[in-house]
Amino acid sequence: MKKIVIVGGCAAGPKAASKCKRINPENIVELYTLEDMVSYSACGLPYYIGGIVPNINNLLVRSPEEFRKMGIEVFLNHECTKINPKEKTVVFNGEKEVSYDELILCIGSSPYIPNIKNYNLKNVFNLKVIQDGIDIKNLASTSKTAVLIGAGYIALELLEAFIRSNIKVFVVEKSPRIMPVFDDEISLEIMNEILDNSKGLVEFINNDEVVEFLGDENFEGVVTKNGLTINADFCIVAVGVKPNVDIAKDAGIEIGVTGAIKVDNKMRTSIENIWAAGDCTEDIFIPTKQSVYRALGTIAYKQARVAAINVNADYTGVTEQFDGILGSMVTKFFDYSISSTGLSENAAKELTGYFNLVPISATVEEYDKAGYMPKIGTLKVKLVADKRTGEILGAQAVGKGDVDKRISVVASALRANLTINEFLHLDLPYSPPFSSTIDPLLTAAYKLKQIMDS
Amino acid sequence: MKKIVIVGGCAAGPKAASKCKRINPENIVELYTLEDMVSYSACGLPYYIGGIVPNINNLLVRSPEEFRKMGIEVFLNHECTKINPKEKTVVFNGEKEVSYDELILCIGSSPYIPNIKNYNLKNVFNLKVIQDGIDIKNLASTSKTAVLIGAGYIALELLEAFIRSNIKVFVVEKSPRIMPVFDDEISLEIMNEILDNSKGLVEFINNDEVVEFLGDENFEGVVTKNGLTINADFCIVAVGVKPNVDIAKDAGIEIGVTGAIKVDNKMRTSIENIWAAGDCTEDIFIPTKQSVYRALGTIAYKQARVAAINVNADYTGVTEQFDGILGSMVTKFFDYSISSTGLSENAAKELTGYFNLVPISATVEEYDKAGYMPKIGTLKVKLVADKRTGEILGAQAVGKGDVDKRISVVASALRANLTINEFLHLDLPYSPPFSSTIDPLLTAAYKLKQIMDS
Repeated sequence: MKKIVIVGGCAAGPKAASKCKRINPENIVELYTLEDMVSYSACGLPYYIGGIVPNINNLLVRSPEEFRKMGIEVFLNHECTKINPKEKTVVFNGEKEVSYDELILCIGSSPYIPNIKNYNLKNVFNLKVIQDGIDIKNLASTSKTAVLIGAGYIALELLEAFIRSNIKVFVVEKSPRIMPVFDDEISLEIMNEILDNSKGLVEFINNDEVVEFLGDENFEGVVTKNGLTINADFCIVAVGVKPNVDIAKDAGIEIGVTGAIKVDNKMRTSIENIWAAGDCTEDIFIPTKQSVYRALGTIAYKQARVAAINVNADYTGVTEQFDGILGSMVTKFFDYSISSTGLSENAAKELTGYFNLVPISATVEEYDKAGYMPKIGTLKVKLVADKRTGEILGAQAVGKGDVDKRISVVASALRANLTINEFLHLDLPYSPPFSSTIDPLLTAAYKLKQIMDS
Repeated sequence: MKKIVIVGGCAAGPKAASKCKRINPENIVELYTLEDMVSYSACGLPYYIGGIVPNINNLLVRSPEEFRKMGIEVFLNHECTKINPKEKTVVFNGEKEVSYDELILCIGSSPYIPNIKNYNLKNVFNLKVIQDGIDIKNLASTSKTAVLIGAGYIALELLEAFIRSNIKVFVVEKSPRIMPVFDDEISLEIMNEILDNSKGLVEFINNDEVVEFLGDENFEGVVTKNGLTINADFCIVAVGVKPNVDIAKDAGIEIGVTGAIKVDNKMRTSIENIWAAGDCTEDIFIPTKQSVYRALGTIAYKQARVAAINVNADYTGVTEQFDGILGSMVTKFFDYSISSTGLSENAAKELTGYFNLVPISATVEEYDKAGYMPKIGTLKVKLVADKRTGEILGAQAVGKGDVDKRISVVASALRANLTINEFLHLDLPYSPPFSSTIDPLLTAAYKLKQIMDS
């Protein structure tokens, strides 16, 4: 039995708490969060805003009462302000000191705020916590125009939500393309798809950035570096997140090269009895073994599970390692799905100096199912491999078909270091409603094999 | 340049022909089939019968004219009656002798005909070639009742087709359960799903077999071993297929333990310059390395590709191996999907004597997507592993969700011999419309890991 204090209430924290209690019901488990609720799906917020999820309460996974019934004490509105590793205590709200045997930090991330003049106006939002979702949805219901800063996948999910609400959206993105995790030509295809299916409601302004907000109290518009002025009813800033590390840094916990908390593969920080999981930590990117920072719910859950297992290893004798991530992602724009895993060709090329990689790729565009089935979609799959070894490095897929299936298969293959020669023999289940006789993924692999052999 | 003669016109034959021509356009490629058409999707026939595919021509992949345009000569209504390996000739229709440099046998399979008295009646069908599909659909449009002998996946696909046509179907199956590739409890669940969603039109008669057909010229009904008499308008016999091997056997080509043509991993038969691919060959089942017989379109295509590559290896310098199969399959009953790969727990248990396996399994029932998304389905996933090594042996999934995605991932993992400890860390793409934060597959893996560690 030990007293386990967990700081953070969104995804990793609640997961770590439940797991610690389940592993040893004798444990005293305390879950602290600075918010006034606990355990919710932030990933679902765009679907609430778009009206797909009708009620905000649907996004709540477990209430404080449910945790209490499990024997986990939940403390809302408790902001962790200090960690005292020597005394093994944490301080909340600057005054309440709590002791721990083991401390798990799930302190998450915060929206990255770009340098914009006159930033602090009403009707400027990030999308991070439940209240953001509620506020944005309320405002969207009475608005006609919006500026969306950023063009990553959160931005894209919000685009769909705003189009559903008939809001004209100006997307301002610093880089020349959207969804930069994709290669240029795939990114361009995603952009075209959005433009073609947004009822004229979307305008992309790439290669430009917002330098100033207009308005006195309420947001009224933006001015860009290239001199554009765009008037709009509200603004969403979605240019990524940064890890919350201040209290960890103050306590002397090592911060990694990415700026996030450094953890080993047991989810231990540099200080004994302090663990970390979720958006506040950095990850090992499996294809390159480099440290990267990715804030994703599915990673948070997995890290929290591993942390909880290792925190209780002295009791169970069982340990577990978290070996890293592939950066797998999937999202959608209406019925057009977008997914990737591992390295893009661009990313692989940038690494050639470090790793002696010789990146090659093959792209195919194929039917999602047997060509004669109804409601058939088309999907594009791009596979990237290393010409020297044949090792698969990554994949991207987009289209109106089951793209996440294909990317999931590649994620599995990447985990196992399959080469193209092995991959192209995969015995994937086939029948006409589910795929073509030779899956598009394998057609791409055949093409890649020809390039390898040439 | 060489003269390549290919016998068989459904899936493997046309695929081998196109590939041989593409690899070296100088090749003389001749494609012979005993049918009056070539290159079609037999797998699509149930969907034609059910009205999902409106026109039988939709199932034709390529016409003889299209092959001729590619420079491939197609010979319809040519039944291969003899192979003369010494002379390197084949005889068609007992009279026409054709020489070859390389011969690829894609002579397929024939329906297995059970021992039933009074079998040769009108309105008794197998489902094998295009004409079967046309005949069954015609008859179904004026029929009220049918007997379906067999309860494998072709039978199941026909069930859906007949329910769509409002036909009452009696399914007679020798074994105590349907879809015997699945474990008992999953098989039972599939059966319940069918009974619950067939508008009362389906009756299963298990543990019984048809011993006699009733009728003089036309089929009128069946008598079973247990003494049941069932009157019906027509009958489908779908109890599996057997490889066509007679001409191969006569020529001295080695037949394997399963009764199908034995090939090595280059798709060579035991006689030089004679190759085989598709339903007429036996396969290596990767999880056990045993020879098995599986007649599946996706395997036929892959084998044909490998055969064509190796037939032309002296020209290209490129060879390829076909390493075997996992028996991956997927099918559906309306919106209920059914998929599996590798070994079931039953099959693994039957092998314990040979392989020292200690099969363990874990089953979970989970939402297909984030719980708050609309149109959410539930799926059941069962993972089977070897307790000694943690190696994954197989998986089964059923439900109203994306089951083939999960099975595809396991197929990839099986190919790479991933253990449960590796598998449970798979970084699968996640967002609420596509899966739960922790995919059901991983939840099953966590459960299996606990059993392993206990």
